[in-house]
Amino acid sequence: MSESNAADLILASASPRRSELLEQIGVRFTILATDIDESRLENESPSDYVSRLALEKSRAGYSRQTRTLKSAEGKGGEGKGGEDKLPSLGADTIVVCDQQIFGKPKDQAHAAAMLMALSGKVHTVMSAVAVSQGPCSSSRLTKTLVRFRTISQSECLTYWQTGEPEGKAGGYAIQGRGAVFVDHIEGSYSGVVGLPLSETAEILGEFDIPLWTAESPR
Amino acid sequence: MSESNAADLILASASPRRSELLEQIGVRFTILATDIDESRLENESPSDYVSRLALEKSRAGYSRQTRTLKSAEGKGGEGKGGEDKLPSLGADTIVVCDQQIFGKPKDQAHAAAMLMALSGKVHTVMSAVAVSQGPCSSSRLTKTLVRFRTISQSECLTYWQTGEPEGKAGGYAIQGRGAVFVDHIEGSYSGVVGLPLSETAEILGEFDIPLWTAESPR
Repeated sequence: MSESNAADLILASASPRRSELLEQIGVRFTILATDIDESRLENESPSDYVSRLALEKSRAGYSRQTRTLKSAEGKGGEGKGGEDKLPSLGADTIVVCDQQIFGKPKDQAHAAAMLMALSGKVHTVMSAVAVSQGPCSSSRLTKTLVRFRTISQSECLTYWQTGEPEGKAGGYAIQGRGAVFVDHIEGSYSGVVGLPLSETAEILGEFDIPLWTAESPR
Repeated sequence: MSESNAADLILASASPRRSELLEQIGVRFTILATDIDESRLENESPSDYVSRLALEKSRAGYSRQTRTLKSAEGKGGEGKGGEDKLPSLGADTIVVCDQQIFGKPKDQAHAAAMLMALSGKVHTVMSAVAVSQGPCSSSRLTKTLVRFRTISQSECLTYWQTGEPEGKAGGYAIQGRGAVFVDHIEGSYSGVVGLPLSETAEILGEFDIPLWTAESPR
């Protein structure tokens, strides 16, 4: 992560995956986790739901700035928002299979049930990203098809014991050991991990936030 | 990387990306880089070429073992090969655009020419993996479609200056800053990085090589 006094952006997320993805494209950011109500509204579609959460997180991150985090280079304060605060990025990712949203597993049985439901089938991972500054917001939604090979019950158990499924929507991590389940994707890989990078870069461009500036992790 | 005395597999590649990908799925391996002739045969198709290189690397890695690297648990020596040596994994990845194979950039102008040729279009990344043990080999080939957004000349230059294009087939790294160019993929993300994990896991299963055993890097 960048030093906050050189940040161009607030990352309104505590997710280490999202930090890593922003680092990958060299954005200078500072983390300000938010705590919004993540309940789904009545009759809200999965795509409306994930888009709304990303936007609410980005707005909450913007509002939570109590002091100016404007970068030393003078970026971030001028322009669209008109206020002297950094733009804030929020994101949300959900796993959708047979019209159902799969959340984070509650326990081993729940994780196994989700993985067995995904086994041998194609599901959709929806990933939304939004950047807000004052009254201004811009957002994107990606939908990626992910095909799983057939998984056995005993693999589910062994996978649970690796500790990886915990805290992961759908009970797997494509960027970890769960990669062996995924035999094909169509769309945005980084979206499945938690932040669609091409779309994020596009939005950051709208807010004049530079890429490729921070030290690369690899 | 694993200690060599606990390894189940030889990785016949000096590529740090391939090491990271094998680590991601928890394989215990030891690196033994090979030096094969990578020239393309006359009239050899791109898919034959990449498949042959992966196989030759895996065989070269197997042959280069001068001493028994059999794991402490007794895996790897018995079975298919019949010899007391570890199975060896080789892989190769090429970028194919308009029937042409794009190699590693020679200089900034070459890198820019490749990126401008990929700009706004779909290209194919072919990634082959092979495991050999004695007379026995098993291999897989993946073909992934990668769509680039339109890239400007000045972006090519800035990207070159990040140092990332050097040594990368096609002049970009999807797992690095080059991710911002990629707006859609169809196939295997890990194949584009350099080693298709689902297919690798399948082959490792044929050789009774365990996954998810080594310490995970994340």
